[in-house]
Amino acid sequence: MHSIPIPSAKRSSRTKLSHAGAATAMMVLAVGLAALGSAASAVAQEAAKVDYPTGYRDWTHVKSMVIQSGHPLYESFGGIHHIYANQSALEGYRTGSFADGSVIIFDLLEATAADNAITEGKRKVLGVMQKDGKRFAGTGGWGFEGFAAGDPARPVVGKDAATACFQCHTAQKDRDYVFSVWRE
Amino acid sequence: MHSIPIPSAKRSSRTKLSHAGAATAMMVLAVGLAALGSAASAVAQEAAKVDYPTGYRDWTHVKSMVIQSGHPLYESFGGIHHIYANQSALEGYRTGSFADGSVIIFDLLEATAADNAITEGKRKVLGVMQKDGKRFAGTGGWGFEGFAAGDPARPVVGKDAATACFQCHTAQKDRDYVFSVWRE
Repeated sequence: MHSIPIPSAKRSSRTKLSHAGAATAMMVLAVGLAALGSAASAVAQEAAKVDYPTGYRDWTHVKSMVIQSGHPLYESFGGIHHIYANQSALEGYRTGSFADGSVIIFDLLEATAADNAITEGKRKVLGVMQKDGKRFAGTGGWGFEGFAAGDPARPVVGKDAATACFQCHTAQKDRDYVFSVWRE
Repeated sequence: MHSIPIPSAKRSSRTKLSHAGAATAMMVLAVGLAALGSAASAVAQEAAKVDYPTGYRDWTHVKSMVIQSGHPLYESFGGIHHIYANQSALEGYRTGSFADGSVIIFDLLEATAADNAITEGKRKVLGVMQKDGKRFAGTGGWGFEGFAAGDPARPVVGKDAATACFQCHTAQKDRDYVFSVWRE
């Protein structure tokens, strides 16, 4: 964590004040600290935030799968999903180890079954795994996020990545925590 | 069609030969003409041949669909298919008109239904539409080919494109004969 200077608090400690003035200074300090607290946690959250994967629809399609009612993952991942990978992640599929900068997409759409066919519906969630050993040291070097309906403004995982995502992915530790496999 | 010189035939017409020699010359001529015939039809087929779409797995994924037993297209296209487009074809999806050089892929894989999920199996056929107004003037400017199991050496459509492919695609004339629509 970086130290952040608080001009108002510093000034109040150097200045002789009336009682009322001191009370005001304390309030300023309190407000200042509260602001610092918010700023600090904002910085902490910022540091661990997964980037929205701009342009991912042009990345390479790795594989797809349909998860149907009755499947153990149906509640979370029911529908048709497509896996996409950026250039660095493609290399990771080949070598089994993903370099910082690798991004893997789990693009989940509704699957509409009708007339003996399954077609794609609306986007349910856009899942992202972003590799950065430093930023995401606590979760195997991967950041996890899900954007509801693919909306960059609606992240649904946030600081719950460890329990909501990584916990399952630990099963894949030998493959650098990645479930999907490149399909020719 | 280009004229192809047949040295052996020309030489035989200029040379005075014995009966046996004349018979040999006739045989040489016949063999020469047969060779010419093969070469000529090879040239004609060459002109209308669809290129194998090298590198298509890195092109942009447009959309996917699963066609199941009971669907009218099940016999031909049962399984899960993915549509890919090269850069020029992507522009075509946007404008509704596809420039020469546009290539659209219909990548058909077996769809394996088990445990309340549908997963991808082996490649059944790699379908290709290649736009070239001159080469494929007879079929809306599009060349059609299917490579069995994705094998470049096993084209299955050949000169049957008009009946095997284009006939259905005429229904989409207003969209430059393309069925698929870009899905965000």
